[in-house]
Amino acid sequence: MPSIETFQRQFIQYLDSHPYRNEPVSLYEPINYIMGLGGKRLRPVLAMLGYTMFDDRSDRSLPIAYAVELFHNFTLVHDDIMDQAPLRRGKPTVHERYGVNTGILSGDVMLIHVYDYLLSAGDPATSHALIGAFNRIAVEVCQGQQYDMEFERRDTVAIPEYIRMIELKSAALLGGSLELGAIAANAPADDIRHLADFGRQIGIAFQLHDDLLDVFGDPDKFGKKVGGDIAQNKKTFLALKAMELADEPTRAQLRQLMTDTLLPEQDKINAVTAIFERLNIRQYTEAEKSLYRQQAFENLAAVQAPAAYKQLLIHLADQLMDREV
Amino acid sequence: MPSIETFQRQFIQYLDSHPYRNEPVSLYEPINYIMGLGGKRLRPVLAMLGYTMFDDRSDRSLPIAYAVELFHNFTLVHDDIMDQAPLRRGKPTVHERYGVNTGILSGDVMLIHVYDYLLSAGDPATSHALIGAFNRIAVEVCQGQQYDMEFERRDTVAIPEYIRMIELKSAALLGGSLELGAIAANAPADDIRHLADFGRQIGIAFQLHDDLLDVFGDPDKFGKKVGGDIAQNKKTFLALKAMELADEPTRAQLRQLMTDTLLPEQDKINAVTAIFERLNIRQYTEAEKSLYRQQAFENLAAVQAPAAYKQLLIHLADQLMDREV
Repeated sequence: MPSIETFQRQFIQYLDSHPYRNEPVSLYEPINYIMGLGGKRLRPVLAMLGYTMFDDRSDRSLPIAYAVELFHNFTLVHDDIMDQAPLRRGKPTVHERYGVNTGILSGDVMLIHVYDYLLSAGDPATSHALIGAFNRIAVEVCQGQQYDMEFERRDTVAIPEYIRMIELKSAALLGGSLELGAIAANAPADDIRHLADFGRQIGIAFQLHDDLLDVFGDPDKFGKKVGGDIAQNKKTFLALKAMELADEPTRAQLRQLMTDTLLPEQDKINAVTAIFERLNIRQYTEAEKSLYRQQAFENLAAVQAPAAYKQLLIHLADQLMDREV
Repeated sequence: MPSIETFQRQFIQYLDSHPYRNEPVSLYEPINYIMGLGGKRLRPVLAMLGYTMFDDRSDRSLPIAYAVELFHNFTLVHDDIMDQAPLRRGKPTVHERYGVNTGILSGDVMLIHVYDYLLSAGDPATSHALIGAFNRIAVEVCQGQQYDMEFERRDTVAIPEYIRMIELKSAALLGGSLELGAIAANAPADDIRHLADFGRQIGIAFQLHDDLLDVFGDPDKFGKKVGGDIAQNKKTFLALKAMELADEPTRAQLRQLMTDTLLPEQDKINAVTAIFERLNIRQYTEAEKSLYRQQAFENLAAVQAPAAYKQLLIHLADQLMDREV
């Protein structure tokens, strides 16, 4: 029985044996750089799990695993340019290290090469199905990024709009990784759909968990500064829910806190957190998260696959959300 | 017998009936904007010609025609960001009108949608072949853009490097448009290869023609300012050939002219043009252009297709280079 770690190791071995050596070096070096920055390799593991649930020749899932990781890293390269982010996994972002123009162009080449891997993942009919599904997912991810940028400039965002945005921007590719793996293994259509929905709903739950961690996380275990989202006036689920539930005076106070530029950062974080606590925002967010987690597990239960593999997916989902809130 | 104009009309009708109406509007409006800016629609016409030479159901070539035009416009959107170009076809560029971030992201979505059209252009086996060929071409175009940006920062560029750059950056997609059309029509492999080479060599000849026009074009007929490349110190074929052929004093003079920031622009253009004339650069460039044109026509002659279609391609190539030098 394989483990998450076995899949990770198998993928990293494949990754290390497929560096880009093409010319011009200046175009391909950034691809090797970003792909080598590490991380949990969550999407490749999901693609490999989605495959091996239906066909145990796990090495055949490696092109799909590579494709989803390459696509994910393409989005990181372009998103980091749009967000003017200086760091990624503690290292300089691609555009910071190689310049914005090379960042744009290397990203473009990564996106093109994703299709090389999808083409090589099966016979023409399977590739056709893979590319069709991938295109749907890839467009969703771009739409999610556009909504995210749009929401930053908007005064109000409704909760369903926010949920839809995180679904598109990040959950779609988690579900998509499982889906593409299962398609490559020629899994039955119903199982593919349930698996994709499982990944998508776990992805939404994970994003809500992340929003919670930012405010209520243990400062010793949370990698970033607790309250960072509040300091940056981010429209997280917590902030939007608070705006929805607050009475008019509290809403005015929240608005005032989110536009105040003179208040010391920690005071602002404390004041907003106090409002969240008063409004039970933590409990509301936990409830929403549980809802998606629950739906996800129902979808997983409906998949016709060996229990041991489903157990691995549950384990992986728990790992994602294991940090204390 | 169809004409170039028939193909253009048929394509524009298809284009007009396929606007993007997807959400978010802010992501798709720029696509409709750039695709609607007009132009000769050269690549779609080539794709349609490449198809109808082997299968006269020209409407079946429209998805391929759309795919190559969408890809071409994707490269324009991203290249204009990299070049910080304010205008395209006399109108504001996408990033100028909608912002750099939307320009990057709308471009990404265009590239993804190219594959939708390639997927829909035939049965799975044909789509597989189309996407394989397209990926090779698309990567070449990106490599060409990277070389072009690299050459700007380099002191010296050898003529073969320059030819390779223009081949990748612009000629590959002209040949590729014919090639993809022919693949979609299930043409024999030899014919596909000869057609692709024809388009590629005509593309190189056309780029050399363009370099010539910039210096020796008729100011009344040339759309841009004659001498613009000289004013911007561009490493065109003419400039590189002059550096190659000049004796040491002339080379020093050229270098001095290309770094002089005080000399009035017209004086600089006149001085460099005089050196080009003294070194017979015009004749050398004409000879190089004829060489590629000749090779192109030999490849076209080897294609097994009705003479009338080949005549249309010759006519199109002549049209491209009809402006007086």
